[in-house]
Amino acid sequence: MLPADLPGTVRDALLAPLVDHHCHGVRRDDLTRAEFELLINEGGSPAPPGTTHFDTPFGAAVRRWCAPLLDLEPHAPPAVYLARRAELGAGEVNRRFLAASGVVAFLVDTEPAGAWEEGELLSAPEMGRHGGAAADELVRIEAVERDVAETAQISVDYLDDLGEELTARAARAVGFTTVIGSLHGLDFDPSRPSRGSVIAAVNRRLSEPKEPLTDPVLLRHLLWIAIDVARERGLPVQFHTGFGGSGPDLHRSDPARLSALVRALQPASVPVVLLHCYPFHRQAAYLAGLYPHVYVDVGLALPHTAAASARVVEELLELAPFHKQVFGSGCHAVAETGYLGALSYRRAMGAALRARLGSGEWSVADAARVAHMIGSGNARRIYRL
Amino acid sequence: MLPADLPGTVRDALLAPLVDHHCHGVRRDDLTRAEFELLINEGGSPAPPGTTHFDTPFGAAVRRWCAPLLDLEPHAPPAVYLARRAELGAGEVNRRFLAASGVVAFLVDTEPAGAWEEGELLSAPEMGRHGGAAADELVRIEAVERDVAETAQISVDYLDDLGEELTARAARAVGFTTVIGSLHGLDFDPSRPSRGSVIAAVNRRLSEPKEPLTDPVLLRHLLWIAIDVARERGLPVQFHTGFGGSGPDLHRSDPARLSALVRALQPASVPVVLLHCYPFHRQAAYLAGLYPHVYVDVGLALPHTAAASARVVEELLELAPFHKQVFGSGCHAVAETGYLGALSYRRAMGAALRARLGSGEWSVADAARVAHMIGSGNARRIYRL
Amino acid sequence: MLPADLPGTVRDALLAPLVDHHCHGVRRDDLTRAEFELLINEGGSPAPPGTTHFDTPFGAAVRRWCAPLLDLEPHAPPAVYLARRAELGAGEVNRRFLAASGVVAFLVDTEPAGAWEEGELLSAPEMGRHGGAAADELVRIEAVERDVAETAQISVDYLDDLGEELTARAARAVGFTTVIGSLHGLDFDPSRPSRGSVIAAVNRRLSEPKEPLTDPVLLRHLLWIAIDVARERGLPVQFHTGFGGSGPDLHRSDPARLSALVRALQPASVPVVLLHCYPFHRQAAYLAGLYPHVYVDVGLALPHTAAASARVVEELLELAPFHKQVFGSGCHAVAETGYLGALSYRRAMGAALRARLGSGEWSVADAARVAHMIGSGNARRIYRL
Repeated sequence: MLPADLPGTVRDALLAPLVDHHCHGVRRDDLTRAEFELLINEGGSPAPPGTTHFDTPFGAAVRRWCAPLLDLEPHAPPAVYLARRAELGAGEVNRRFLAASGVVAFLVDTEPAGAWEEGELLSAPEMGRHGGAAADELVRIEAVERDVAETAQISVDYLDDLGEELTARAARAVGFTTVIGSLHGLDFDPSRPSRGSVIAAVNRRLSEPKEPLTDPVLLRHLLWIAIDVARERGLPVQFHTGFGGSGPDLHRSDPARLSALVRALQPASVPVVLLHCYPFHRQAAYLAGLYPHVYVDVGLALPHTAAASARVVEELLELAPFHKQVFGSGCHAVAETGYLGALSYRRAMGAALRARLGSGEWSVADAARVAHMIGSGNARRIYRL
Repeated sequence: MLPADLPGTVRDALLAPLVDHHCHGVRRDDLTRAEFELLINEGGSPAPPGTTHFDTPFGAAVRRWCAPLLDLEPHAPPAVYLARRAELGAGEVNRRFLAASGVVAFLVDTEPAGAWEEGELLSAPEMGRHGGAAADELVRIEAVERDVAETAQISVDYLDDLGEELTARAARAVGFTTVIGSLHGLDFDPSRPSRGSVIAAVNRRLSEPKEPLTDPVLLRHLLWIAIDVARERGLPVQFHTGFGGSGPDLHRSDPARLSALVRALQPASVPVVLLHCYPFHRQAAYLAGLYPHVYVDVGLALPHTAAASARVVEELLELAPFHKQVFGSGCHAVAETGYLGALSYRRAMGAALRARLGSGEWSVADAARVAHMIGSGNARRIYRL
Repeated sequence: MLPADLPGTVRDALLAPLVDHHCHGVRRDDLTRAEFELLINEGGSPAPPGTTHFDTPFGAAVRRWCAPLLDLEPHAPPAVYLARRAELGAGEVNRRFLAASGVVAFLVDTEPAGAWEEGELLSAPEMGRHGGAAADELVRIEAVERDVAETAQISVDYLDDLGEELTARAARAVGFTTVIGSLHGLDFDPSRPSRGSVIAAVNRRLSEPKEPLTDPVLLRHLLWIAIDVARERGLPVQFHTGFGGSGPDLHRSDPARLSALVRALQPASVPVVLLHCYPFHRQAAYLAGLYPHVYVDVGLALPHTAAASARVVEELLELAPFHKQVFGSGCHAVAETGYLGALSYRRAMGAALRARLGSGEWSVADAARVAHMIGSGNARRIYRL
């Protein structure tokens, strides 16, 4: 899996247990081929007639790297792969992939990445048990808001409950996560909305509590309440950005659009973690270098660019400080993502470190040290694990 | 031309005849050095005094790869190259390059890519004859509009003629192509304009029918009429994007800005083909993965990045599904572009496949199959050839 | 430093003295570790507790490549490096690094890149003396405006003085430089502002002459006056763009946003030089290919991406004409930047040329010729050195 000529300490550092600082629970049930294909596509539509979502970088990597964990030959055909997957059952499959990821702690965004039901997914403790690892929770703030909107009768309840619920949830969590980029775009007004505008918006919201929240005033209000709680408790706030946080339009999920908010949060030292970022990971790396409280990963890009993830990781390494990069697998929907995320990360970092050692750019000690920082050390520091 | 250690089936797949799903006719006449230099530059201005447009990646590739087809040594000086080109004559030169492209079918956007006159360019049937290939037509919708605007007397004629002419032209074509990105930018309102706004705009248009169409209302009206016809006839609509579709400002030609229109077209299943895309090809790849009706090429970037096109092709392969990528040469102006486009594509794919085979990422069978899909199979499916 | 198998003429061309067409003076005084760390970070904040700005691509390159020039082993620890730096003293350190850069002429933007005082930095003549090279001045137009605003009593003085001072400063300089991207963003209205709007804005300005200029009307007025002077005197105007010219938001420093201004300057043939550009260097390369008066560098990205700068240089070479690329070191703050900028450039170009020679893409003569053009020839032409 790793280049043969890596020094032992570097190899050990790369193979050491990872902290996966952002993953989702995976489906607990057995999946038909149609279901599996839908889950491995970000768009949620079937492939056009005569084609398959297996004909993607992700699908090719599943056949190459996941098939052997199900006792199949590499490059197994999709039908063979899915038949064996069904034969083993989802529980066994999930255990194999999550354990093989070599993860010591999962930080789990318990909200699904897609539109399916929460009960269908492994919970944070279950992710830990299946993977033989610790597990902690990341609180999706928009999920908290949804619960509050569905139960609040009047606007004063909504406003009170939001803060109380975020505080209560934060007490059991290691960080917040937000998908404001998907629901609105990252080009929102970074200022805290006025109380008057919030109250007006809440009344509209309570008339349609089951709709996804898209009102920019309430999204900003929610975010700022979460920031207040995060500051008090020393929690980071994770932003889905780039192709992993894109709702209306990809270009509006460029993390550079968070610059003004990032500056506003610098005095309070609330850590801002930019997730996924691709294809704007260079922009994210710049922000991570510029601001002491900004961190970055390329999460979802690891399993999805798969064979080409080495270039993505290299591009992040161009400018991002080593103490600001964090491993995240982008695990979601099916456990294959988590395994491929960890595998792609280790292979990409292995290639990057080998290149730097081969050209004499870095020392062996530095290479091992950086591998430890990005693989787990930085996450332990940021999330106070 | 291809890596020596490629397996035979993969080599065969790469050398198999290509479908060039988007090219332009090339100049039929002999060219002076000044004319040739203008044609190989996207900007249409002479190089600054003391410099030459041959000192570009494209120019270097002409000297390296095209010179031998004119019986010259590789790296022939520009003056030698152009003297030999004149000696052979444009007809012979065009035949050599188009035939050497190894293309089995040209889909020809018969509207010139630049400002020169249509009669100066080979027609679609002529492209086919010169290249020993089939040829089909792509209808540039803004050219149809121009013809209609020049003949219509009153707005009702304009409105009727537009639909009729698009329908008539579509009956003989395999797809539509639009340059709305060059004329306006891709950040237009994606909704169908109201009839009232269209009628008001037509009256202004008929007073200046010879100007390029830049009115966003009429550009949108035209596009939506074309979409209606495309849906009825099952035709794809090609959008010039990125550096190949940039008019006012490059950042406004980012294909991500088409996201809302793309979503609007999903229920109707009208194929949307994103052309050129560079430097936003990663954004285009994401859209092609997200939406079942979106396709992508890096056309014009192939001949123009030339020696560096392997990286561009690799970046497209990072995320784009294999059944969504289509070969296009970016051929325009001079036949060298078509030859270099096909050559760059084959060499870039050869390098990409060798890397995946060498690391065991893909099987030989999959590599050959994907080469066939992108080189011709996908285009045959999309354009129903 | 260079690949061992480069032909002698190419090696000679790469090692030939460079013209550094955009650098800043460096600090003349001895620096504490805290000061040094602040200076090597673009954001100007200390690294988070327990971390160091040495854990960056730039910091790793300092330890690898700069340490030996201070008689240390490669990869010296930061504390050892800074102790030796203090022991030698800033004067000796600056001489060693600037001389080792192999630069024959520095074009010095005498305005600091950061917020420190001008007197702390080496002047243009001092940069030349320390580096054993010629030195010329680039006039930062916003610095001229600041001086004028601080001395003008009434608006008519401001307006008169601005033109006179720019003219006077231009007489002793080789070009103008602007940071309008940092102060406002590059998405400003490209037209010349009306005299009425300027006069209104001047009155506001004179009430707060010590504030940084952020009024878009006055920024545009200043720019257009400078353009008038540049046209008369045949001087280029350098724009800080990308991560080296980003103030409010990185995405607003995309040089593509200068397109309309660039078009407006084409008839006057005022050279427009796009500095730094990363991560939008592909956009800048496109503009340099499109317009005869546009030039490009990746300055600051050379020392800051360091071990990964070969990819950045390769991406610029994808599309940018060879007669439009200019070497700039991005030197600022500490002399290590200038040395690493020159070193990164030579190594990156060495790798790019070796790849092109190895694959037969370029001839040896062309490789040497292009190295000379980008390293010094283009700058001599543009700046009339």
